[in-house]
Amino acid sequence: MRNLSLLTDFYQLTMAQGYCQKGKTETAVFDLFYRENPSNNGYAIFAGLEQIIEFVENLRFKEDDISYLKNQGFNDKFLDYLRNFKFKGDIYSVPEGSVVFPKEPLLKVEAPILQAQLLETPLLNLINHQALIATKAARINEAAKGKNVLEFGLRRAHGPDAGIYGARAAVIGGCVGTSNVLTGKKFGVKVSGTHAHSWVMSFESELESFRTYADNFPNNCILLVDTYDTLKSGVPNAIKVFKEMKEKGIESDLFGIRLDSGDLAYLSKEARKMLDQAGFEDAVIVASNNLDENIITSLNLQGAEIDLYGVGTRLITSYDSPAFGAVYKMSEYSDQPKIKLSDNIEKMTNPGDKKLVRIYDKESGKIRADLIALKNEEISENEDLTLFDARDTWKTTTLKKGSYQLRDMLEPIFKNGQLVYDSPSVLEIKNYAEKEKDSLGEEYKRLTNPHIMKVDLSDKLFDLKQRLIKKNKMKK
Amino acid sequence: MRNLSLLTDFYQLTMAQGYCQKGKTETAVFDLFYRENPSNNGYAIFAGLEQIIEFVENLRFKEDDISYLKNQGFNDKFLDYLRNFKFKGDIYSVPEGSVVFPKEPLLKVEAPILQAQLLETPLLNLINHQALIATKAARINEAAKGKNVLEFGLRRAHGPDAGIYGARAAVIGGCVGTSNVLTGKKFGVKVSGTHAHSWVMSFESELESFRTYADNFPNNCILLVDTYDTLKSGVPNAIKVFKEMKEKGIESDLFGIRLDSGDLAYLSKEARKMLDQAGFEDAVIVASNNLDENIITSLNLQGAEIDLYGVGTRLITSYDSPAFGAVYKMSEYSDQPKIKLSDNIEKMTNPGDKKLVRIYDKESGKIRADLIALKNEEISENEDLTLFDARDTWKTTTLKKGSYQLRDMLEPIFKNGQLVYDSPSVLEIKNYAEKEKDSLGEEYKRLTNPHIMKVDLSDKLFDLKQRLIKKNKMKK
Repeated sequence: MRNLSLLTDFYQLTMAQGYCQKGKTETAVFDLFYRENPSNNGYAIFAGLEQIIEFVENLRFKEDDISYLKNQGFNDKFLDYLRNFKFKGDIYSVPEGSVVFPKEPLLKVEAPILQAQLLETPLLNLINHQALIATKAARINEAAKGKNVLEFGLRRAHGPDAGIYGARAAVIGGCVGTSNVLTGKKFGVKVSGTHAHSWVMSFESELESFRTYADNFPNNCILLVDTYDTLKSGVPNAIKVFKEMKEKGIESDLFGIRLDSGDLAYLSKEARKMLDQAGFEDAVIVASNNLDENIITSLNLQGAEIDLYGVGTRLITSYDSPAFGAVYKMSEYSDQPKIKLSDNIEKMTNPGDKKLVRIYDKESGKIRADLIALKNEEISENEDLTLFDARDTWKTTTLKKGSYQLRDMLEPIFKNGQLVYDSPSVLEIKNYAEKEKDSLGEEYKRLTNPHIMKVDLSDKLFDLKQRLIKKNKMKK
Repeated sequence: MRNLSLLTDFYQLTMAQGYCQKGKTETAVFDLFYRENPSNNGYAIFAGLEQIIEFVENLRFKEDDISYLKNQGFNDKFLDYLRNFKFKGDIYSVPEGSVVFPKEPLLKVEAPILQAQLLETPLLNLINHQALIATKAARINEAAKGKNVLEFGLRRAHGPDAGIYGARAAVIGGCVGTSNVLTGKKFGVKVSGTHAHSWVMSFESELESFRTYADNFPNNCILLVDTYDTLKSGVPNAIKVFKEMKEKGIESDLFGIRLDSGDLAYLSKEARKMLDQAGFEDAVIVASNNLDENIITSLNLQGAEIDLYGVGTRLITSYDSPAFGAVYKMSEYSDQPKIKLSDNIEKMTNPGDKKLVRIYDKESGKIRADLIALKNEEISENEDLTLFDARDTWKTTTLKKGSYQLRDMLEPIFKNGQLVYDSPSVLEIKNYAEKEKDSLGEEYKRLTNPHIMKVDLSDKLFDLKQRLIKKNKMKK
């Protein structure tokens, strides 16, 4: 286990010492939320909670941390506090793999202010990474329209963790597996891959390299055909080897070719014809090379004959949108609701200790809207429910009782510092995420200009917010 | 120490088993190079070597790795090989902090093919991350024109390593410090930061929050002034507190304000006037909020009064260009030079065991060009040196003997598996990188449309490449 206790911004520690010094031990409530969907998607996939749990459970300051901080000028009273630190608060969160939307609380920490504050940076770091990659993976899988997608990006990830946990998030977002062996081992997800150009180049001929590969891995025999010339050399040599395998009576579980350069639409169609003509209708065609949701969509439109996509750089870095932008804001301190003002109403925070209620259409099972309400407010399924836009308040919708169902999205993870939640396995989370995506109408899932899901405030929260805006403006 | 031995692509292991099975133990030479500078910069900063050394030194397969691989279907002969694995080859590299250019070998591995192949993914992962962030940091520091830049991005980094080693790389690229405490502890770099909006919001008034902060941290007292209203509330309250400190006779090492929203050019100029009028000419103004090299350049052009920039998201993710794109290609196998063909001459690799020679102008000390040559070729300072463009071969330049100096860029790191290199400290690397940047003419450092550094091939390498292209084309 790595010691990541100092994985935080310096100012969290200066503030913590300040709170310690001043004896401020009141409870604060912080919300973790984000403001915009990455890549202009219609939703995001929440991920990273298991790593948050691991972090919080292991958050202890060791003597070498303490002596480092002493050298940085922190005082003994505070260092003694850290020496005995153990998280004592509550954490609520939406489950990993949940479909989520901007501005709603995804995770909530209630703890003595010093403790809640200390969690800010690591929690944001973990969620901002994994939610980003899970969301990008969901987009890419949406584009693949049921064809399988493999995560291939380790070499372009931002360091080891970005590779390991990025692959985890990619599987949650919809990928069937990864090339990353360590992720496979850690999380029990499927790993795959066959060989590179260097394999071919290390033999006297491409044919000999294919033959050797097939001898070694008859049951997972995807031959990379573009080292010299895809259609004149690679595919014919692959077919020769598949024939030899057939003659030897080998029935392969998985065999085929991989295209890694050139015009993938044209080459895949030509290769498909050649494979079919040789009697290998069951040979699969894998494609890789700077793929993303746009290129995959274009390949589909061109009728490319690709069975499996390997996606690297643009998935593991979320290339067009490489930051998720979740923030962590105080909404209550010492039982007083708090708001952060801004000239831009979109940037004002929602005050108070809150809950997130998801509203489903009873008939279709699809999400109608999300509602942010105060924690102790009762939202009942037994009455008509009127929703209104928090900015354009004249925009209202009334849902008849009986036509909708409610779900409380925030589940308890820690209570009084005790873990009260069992993390599902990554494959369980992946299956849950598939169901979550099914709960979205198609119009929310399209890749360009998706519908914007309504995320509304309850009457009571709206009123509280207006009151606090006025009160805080008067402070000026 | 984490066990990262399985941090690799699955195909590296299938190929390795294939080599093991076939008894292929010949030496291969692999070059690590990149094709394009990120963010259209004129150069890149090489970083990540210390972590490569750590990885290679610790590359052992433990029993739990072996049993995982056994379950994946690998055979006992290969697993026995892995059980006794220890890297036995040579690694050469340019030093960390070096200014480097596209297509030249930055790092070279010479080892039995199986071993050289096994290093591909982790080496690329480490370099692709750190060279990316170091290069982005160099751009941002270039824009800051001598003003200090701090790295503030941990919360938006792609997981813990991206934060820890991203901050390391940012310091190498030119930042004076980071907010990341763990990076400070691990690498002895300066950490800084003061307080967040939540600090202010947890007090009854902004003034009380500032006062408490100043009491606790008189010597590093940067007050965040935009929680309520920067010019009407934040700056006047900060000035009030600075006056109280003065009255108490406190002489602060560092005090001032931080702006984190709004029009930073306007607010910084107004705040500067207010601070100066109150007699606090030595109060510093720190700015943050989605900064990058373009916004910093614009702030400079507007005469913003900013002393210190805190840069987060766009540095730690290299937002506009989030992948470095280094690759690792075989250039020799069993003493035979190898080439990877492509329809695009830019994508063809340079064959053979090579060296990288940097040519400096003797008078100015600036880099004239880089020359890629065969390892055993003698390039002498005692003759005129004619360089030519590898594509437009009629473009030649002749350097008179005595007017230039040569430097061999690739230094031995491992010899026969033994580490023969002392990693400098991060601050030493940072200082070296500053000198490296000084060896570039201004025209290579400008942020838009920089000069392209000449990276030429020696006559012998050029001839070898042409010969292999013809030979391989005939293979088709």
